[in-house]
Amino acid sequence: MNVEQRMKSLDSGVLPIQIVEGKILILDQRKLPERKEFFDATELDRMCYAIKEMVVRGAPSIGVAAAFGLASEARRIAATKIPGAQFLTLLDDAKHKLQELRPTAVNLRWATEKIYARAKFELDRNGDLDQATLAEDLFQSVLNLLEEHEEKNRALGDFGATLIDSNASVMTHCNAGPLAACGWGTALGVIRSAFFNGVKLSVIVGETRPRNQGARLTMWELHQDGIPASLITDSMAGYLMATHRIDIVIVGADRIAANGDTANKIGTYNLAVLAKYHDIPFYVAAPLSTFDPSIANGTIIPIEERDLSEVTMVCDCGSSHTVFGAKAINPAFDVTPAHLISGIVTEVGILRPPYEYSIGCALARDNSGLE
Amino acid sequence: MNVEQRMKSLDSGVLPIQIVEGKILILDQRKLPERKEFFDATELDRMCYAIKEMVVRGAPSIGVAAAFGLASEARRIAATKIPGAQFLTLLDDAKHKLQELRPTAVNLRWATEKIYARAKFELDRNGDLDQATLAEDLFQSVLNLLEEHEEKNRALGDFGATLIDSNASVMTHCNAGPLAACGWGTALGVIRSAFFNGVKLSVIVGETRPRNQGARLTMWELHQDGIPASLITDSMAGYLMATHRIDIVIVGADRIAANGDTANKIGTYNLAVLAKYHDIPFYVAAPLSTFDPSIANGTIIPIEERDLSEVTMVCDCGSSHTVFGAKAINPAFDVTPAHLISGIVTEVGILRPPYEYSIGCALARDNSGLE
Repeated sequence: MNVEQRMKSLDSGVLPIQIVEGKILILDQRKLPERKEFFDATELDRMCYAIKEMVVRGAPSIGVAAAFGLASEARRIAATKIPGAQFLTLLDDAKHKLQELRPTAVNLRWATEKIYARAKFELDRNGDLDQATLAEDLFQSVLNLLEEHEEKNRALGDFGATLIDSNASVMTHCNAGPLAACGWGTALGVIRSAFFNGVKLSVIVGETRPRNQGARLTMWELHQDGIPASLITDSMAGYLMATHRIDIVIVGADRIAANGDTANKIGTYNLAVLAKYHDIPFYVAAPLSTFDPSIANGTIIPIEERDLSEVTMVCDCGSSHTVFGAKAINPAFDVTPAHLISGIVTEVGILRPPYEYSIGCALARDNSGLE
Repeated sequence: MNVEQRMKSLDSGVLPIQIVEGKILILDQRKLPERKEFFDATELDRMCYAIKEMVVRGAPSIGVAAAFGLASEARRIAATKIPGAQFLTLLDDAKHKLQELRPTAVNLRWATEKIYARAKFELDRNGDLDQATLAEDLFQSVLNLLEEHEEKNRALGDFGATLIDSNASVMTHCNAGPLAACGWGTALGVIRSAFFNGVKLSVIVGETRPRNQGARLTMWELHQDGIPASLITDSMAGYLMATHRIDIVIVGADRIAANGDTANKIGTYNLAVLAKYHDIPFYVAAPLSTFDPSIANGTIIPIEERDLSEVTMVCDCGSSHTVFGAKAINPAFDVTPAHLISGIVTEVGILRPPYEYSIGCALARDNSGLE
């Protein structure tokens, strides 16, 4: 099967990244739910734009997009017919360019390192390897990653589904469904697995200012699946917890340190503190590729600061909702310390404290972690 | 001095309610900071609309607006020359109509009861009293309330200013400045007093979804005063507290129960829990007219549920930011239990726990509370 045939055979619902007629097309998440529009990210610069400006977002989806971007760049370099050593140098440059776009999510680094390592391995073994063939091989490697990732999402969903009781009200934040996870979903995958296993549940979705991924994307995905959901502003979570309308919180992750400290979309930490205060279980759902054992704890996870206009503009209509020239602060992520996390749902099971130990064991048994 | 001359003599900066050429003009807070537009609320139905739709908002300002609305209705009834007993019945109907518009804030009830009681007192004393003269007297009574209220705001501000250390980063939520308080301000009055007393400070303003009063109104008021301020989304508060960028939180109140439990704009409770967790002082600033000793604790304060479109529409441009037909939840207020409150700043001083005692003493010494 060629790359495009394989892409089509993936059964993942809405796949946010597609390969069509040799092009990498990205479902523009900025335009959802109003319209389904695809963004051509075949060229490296356009892929960089797509990742930076969040045409594609969600830690695993960014990883897949960047990996495809690197394979596409390999194809472009191959067409210039330069020597093998220079091929690798150019590919390495592209890899670094991609990795620097979003500093917090580790999957971006993980996926591009995997693809680059594959190219290096093949060229080290055979310096005369046809570069065009190698580039196609890299595309197939991304698809391998994607297929494995899809399977892992499903396994993660099945483990996590056991956490959700009948008639539970499950809160989630931001978007950790198929759009973000490029597959079944992580936090939303858990909810989907429970729902499709017949568990009666409803979802409380935090709108997730400033980019509103909860309102725009999670509500849309839940609606596609027919899962009952109610939208709230991020400010309402405490009130709903205090009035016993939230039974469990499940969120995704952008990077998890060796001790379990978890970086995720800004506002996650608010929820974790509130959940602790109200004695409500708080779970993180993430594949092992989201773990970064090179980082001992969350204090050293880099937090991306994004453009202030995301905060001063309340929506995409272009009008500001504050005074002209207003200062703002816009950290895109926060870090939830491990002691606020009841468990971390992964494809190998639900990890429990002490996390240094459970994470260490899980990664030791797995070969997909970032080395 | 007639009513209009007295209004003009009030030195309160931007007064959100003005009497001009016999009309009640309300600065349309829905349009700020984009433009200053006045809404004619002279007729009772238009005043009801203005309060319900938040043309005017903020517990004290709603109280003043409704009191003017009642005086204006008295003027209209007087013009029909009906007997005194029927005059009172009609005025009582108007009072109830106004009181039912926003159930949470107690000032609305407080101010309209004051004005109605004044009319009843005068008519009980002299059934033949000229109703037109009485209506003018009611306008003067509202102005008396407003002048007293302004003085109390200043006193409250001076007491509260002592809480703010040099170089403090002060977080506030929603809007409790001149627009809301129809005077110097309550929570923002404390910040203004400190700033104008020479205390170097900066303010972190939560945007306060879904109506964005922090972004639209508080940022605008701080900008007018030249007070350094940064806008954040409500979801960022925990992260800023964890990274030591918030030293104190000060918010206003819509109703305070006898035990100190405080209803305020949705999201206040999130901040109170977060502040407690991070050991950051959390203060409420409110005049004694905001206290409701008839309510023992916060669990019985009615919480207004507003239209879901406030949550499903991210801004006034009319476009939804979620799926069509999305469910939502929209409580306009939440209740912060007294044990999370470090102190309550009032015009008679800073009340401290145990609040049953300190609130009881303060109200016993004051004659402005709701009987």
